[in-house]
This record gives sequence, C-alpha cells and structure tokens, in this order.
Amino acid sequence: MASNGTSALSKTHRFDPDFTQSVINATGPKATPRVRKLTASLIQHLHDFARENELTVDEWMAGLELMNAAGRMSDDRRNEGQLLCDILGLESLIDEITYKLASEAADEPTATAILGPFWRKDAPLKEMGDSIVSGIDEEGHRTWMHGVVTDFKTGEPIEGAVLDVWHTAPNGLYEQQDPDQPDMNLRGRFTTGKDGTYNFYCLRPVPYPIPYDGPAGKILQALDRHPYRPAHIHFIITAPGYKPIVTQIFDRNSKYIEDDAVFAVKDSLKVDFKPIQKDPKADFDLTHDFKMATYEDAKKHSLVGATEESASGV
Amino acid sequence: MASNGTSALSKTHRFDPDFTQSVINATGPKATPRVRKLTASLIQHLHDFARENELTVDEWMAGLELMNAAGRMSDDRRNEGQLLCDILGLESLIDEITYKLASEAADEPTATAILGPFWRKDAPLKEMGDSIVSGIDEEGHRTWMHGVVTDFKTGEPIEGAVLDVWHTAPNGLYEQQDPDQPDMNLRGRFTTGKDGTYNFYCLRPVPYPIPYDGPAGKILQALDRHPYRPAHIHFIITAPGYKPIVTQIFDRNSKYIEDDAVFAVKDSLKVDFKPIQKDPKADFDLTHDFKMATYEDAKKHSLVGATEESASGV
Repeated sequence: MASNGTSALSKTHRFDPDFTQSVINATGPKATPRVRKLTASLIQHLHDFARENELTVDEWMAGLELMNAAGRMSDDRRNEGQLLCDILGLESLIDEITYKLASEAADEPTATAILGPFWRKDAPLKEMGDSIVSGIDEEGHRTWMHGVVTDFKTGEPIEGAVLDVWHTAPNGLYEQQDPDQPDMNLRGRFTTGKDGTYNFYCLRPVPYPIPYDGPAGKILQALDRHPYRPAHIHFIITAPGYKPIVTQIFDRNSKYIEDDAVFAVKDSLKVDFKPIQKDPKADFDLTHDFKMATYEDAKKHSLVGATEESASGV
Repeated sequence: MASNGTSALSKTHRFDPDFTQSVINATGPKATPRVRKLTASLIQHLHDFARENELTVDEWMAGLELMNAAGRMSDDRRNEGQLLCDILGLESLIDEITYKLASEAADEPTATAILGPFWRKDAPLKEMGDSIVSGIDEEGHRTWMHGVVTDFKTGEPIEGAVLDVWHTAPNGLYEQQDPDQPDMNLRGRFTTGKDGTYNFYCLRPVPYPIPYDGPAGKILQALDRHPYRPAHIHFIITAPGYKPIVTQIFDRNSKYIEDDAVFAVKDSLKVDFKPIQKDPKADFDLTHDFKMATYEDAKKHSLVGATEESASGV
C-alpha cells in the first residue's frame, strides 16, 4: 500500500511518531472498511502535509477561513467548494481515475471530463435540427453540430439516448450568470431515434474566466495563475441501460487549450470547428460521436464513474 | 524534501504520471516561495490521496458536501470547519509542531494545546481571589486554583500577565450553549501583580461531547467514535513583550483522559484536583504554573505559534 511508504518516509521528521497512528486507531469497529481506509489515508496525508511544511497556526487558520468562506458561498446556483477542487486539479484527476478504470476494458467508451459548476437540470427538450440559441443572432459563431451515439462494444447505434448540452455565449458567460440572456439560452436536451444520430444548431463557444470573486479567485491570485478555461461544450449523455457520460469537448484552436485553469482537457476530446459556406444558418460544422457502455459491461470491466444520482446532485 | 519521496512512490500507480506536476507547474512566477511550497505540497497530497484510494466521483462529492455544509454552519459563535480539523487531529498536530519548535530551545515554556471553538472575547475582568462562577452554587465541584506566571528563561515572575480562563459547567455545557447559565458564566480575565501570582475560584469541570449535529458529528458516527473530551480548563495567557500561550489543563482522573475526541491531551498538561477541607468556599485545590517566552527569545529560538492576532481571530 502506497500510504505505508508515505508513512514510513514521514517518520524521518522530529515530531511524535505515534500521533498519526493514534488518531487513525481511534476509528471504532463498526466503521465500514471503505470509510476506515479513506479516513486513515486522509489523516495520514493531512498530517504529513502539516509536518513536511511545519504548518503554522496562522497558515492553518487562513486555509480554514478560505474553506469556511467557500462553504458559505455555495448554494443551488454556485459550488465554490467544487471550484476550489477544480483549480487544484482534483476533479479532473478523479475523472481520469474513473476513465482509466473504464478504458482498461477491451474497447473504450467516450472519454469523460468534469461536470463543472454550471449545469442546470431541466434544460428545454428539443427536436433534432433545432437550435439551442435563443433570441440572438451571433453571426461568425453559428455552428451545426452532429454525430452518432453508439454502444462502445457492439458499435450499434443507441436509440433513446438523451444528449444534455450547454455552453457559454460569445461574451464568455453562461445564461444564469448573465441577466441579458434569455432563461435556458444555449442549453437543450435531444433524444436520438433508431439510427442513434443527433444534430442541432449551437454556437462556437469562447474561452472564459471561472468565477474569480471568492476563495478560488484568491488562491489563483496568490498562485499568480490566470482563471481562463479554453472554449468547450458540455454534455451529459444518458440512455436506458447505459452508464451516463459526463464530458466536454474542446475547440482545438482555442486559446488556453494547453493551459486550462481546471485541467480538464484530454487529447481525445479536442474537436475541429470547420468553416462551411453551404448552410446559411451556420458558420461552422462540428462532428463528434459518443460511445456508451451498458451498465452490464461497465460492471463486468469494473467501470466506475458518475452515476445518474451524482450527476444530477450538483 | 519528503514530498519528493512521496511523489516518487506515487508514480507506481497507473494514472498519468505527469498530471500532478503539470498542476503544480501552473503556479506563476509571482507566487511567494511559501505559497508555492505549501500549494505544491497540498496538490501532491490531495492527488496521492485520490489515486491511492481510487476515489470515486460519489465519494468526492460526499466529502465536498460535508465541507460546504461545515462552512455554511460556521459563524461568530461556531466554527464547524475547525471542529472537522480537530476530530482528525490536525489542530493538535499543528499545536505539537508549534510546541516542538519552541521546546528545542534550552528551557521549555509551558506546553500549549488547541484553542477550541468556545473561546469568547471580552470575558469579564476580575480581581485576584474572585470567582468566575456566577449565580450557581455547585457544591462538590468548587475549586481554588492558583499559581505563578514566570519568564521561562530567567524564572522571574511576570507582572501584568493576563490569564483569560474558560471552562464548562457541571452539565457539560459552555455558557453560550446553555440558556440556563448567566452570560459569561465560568469565564474571566485576571491580571498578575509584581509577584506574578494568580488565584481565583472556579469549578472542577466534567467531560462533555463536542457538537454532534453537523458534519463533524456525521464523520464521528461513520468512524464509530465517541464525541467526548476529558474534563479541562482553557487558558490564553498574554503579557507585554511575551508570546501568548494558548493552552488547556486536563483533570488527570477524568474519563476520556486517554481518549480525547480531539487528541489535545499532553502529559505535562495533566493536573490534580486535590480535595481540601480548610476552605469553606472550595472542595478542591488546584495549582498550576505558567512559563512564558519573550518575543525576543521566541524569535531567537525560532519559536513559532499562535500570535495575538490568530488567537483573537477565532
């Protein structure tokens, strides 16, 4: 177990070598094995962090106040605690762990990416071919997006898959951040037919800064880091009997593509917005396919990841 | 650097070996060296924790919700985030680090212990010999406490030292938790004269459970741990030119003395409540001396620890 190695190393310090184990040993016999393992590991890492850095009371208090402030700022519309995790790469890492376990199966379903804090439930249900752009004509950004949803193992198209899509306006704001956008602008849900295909009009998104007015902003400032994300479109894809996919696709030519403030970009999620002339309603063509795993295949190959409950809980 | 060792070990996992370093490398050139070091170490430990345990999205979300809930619960009267740190031993460990650095000097000032979440500013100013017990007669608990405050290096008594003292009532509650106690009951501040001595009446405290209705309580329950602290009396001792001491003294014969829910007990802080007959106003005699270090000595010996600002900031 790697944490034993960590523990052994940390015993080179000059503090009470038994203290951390005594805290871990306080766990009682009725704790579940998973709670016991996670807590022991958390205590070990927290204590090693404090000892290795000889953390002062003032530094601990400053960190504690940032965490309490993030909690106070978090509600149904905003999750500042999640944003703190995101700028430290934790959500992307957990996503990588999830995807890695999935990809150890013979074939690979579509790569996943973090949910982020801007998803809203109950986005409008649309027909294929509809636009998710309401009340604005953003020439130069108009995009025709299309593709097919298939079973990653059989390659067969999936009927009844729902694509929940959302992205920012050209001003860099999601609709709930921007009083000038209509409610639910640039959000929609599309359901596939027998052939598994989907298509709709959206916009080509732009890079934008994550919210910068809370503890996450303070940390980015202290770290001399920018708050920008490269242009991307979010998806949650669900289908009866299939493991949901929470993902993002990234504009390969976007600024910050190599320097995402929340470290979510993966090569397989980079896409190309191709200029087109033949469609008077679109400036770009964007094609992307999604491969889903059944719960059965997911279980067989020990795929873990976002369940419907966890995705809708944000 | 120990964290390099940790990092090397963690590379035995099967996840992207460059990811954590890429997050650490995002820190810009204007970050201070201390911010850079603390953040790099925090990111390394967070990521190692996630990888070693193959943390799932659901587990991360559950932890995040606990942290956000702790923040929302924290205000001027309650610090649930601090309580979370306390039950994981972090505050006591930071206190140990502080004290260890202090004790590497030739002589040793009084050992310190965690502040805890129940201190209130502006406790009543009292005269020596006064009682901090208001409006109740708790026979069987009445205690005459006394001692001397000295310079840890010279042994000379310190004039003008202020002892800020607080403890629970025999029902296990601090006054701000208990509508039946008078405001500021069992709190007081005493200022030493030329001889450095102090004395006052208080009660013999009892064990009590830490607040159990928030995220800390949920964690204790999941860990199958009890929420009790052994009986103790809190002190903050300040004196012009001296480093403040934040400490607690523990009743050696109290239940939970070996099993404190927040791991704050140290041998040198255990005291004896001795039964007495000669004082009609007291059932027990308690003597304890405090040794303080000047800021100059503290600096010379690299003593770090609670500053006046951090103590009063809670």
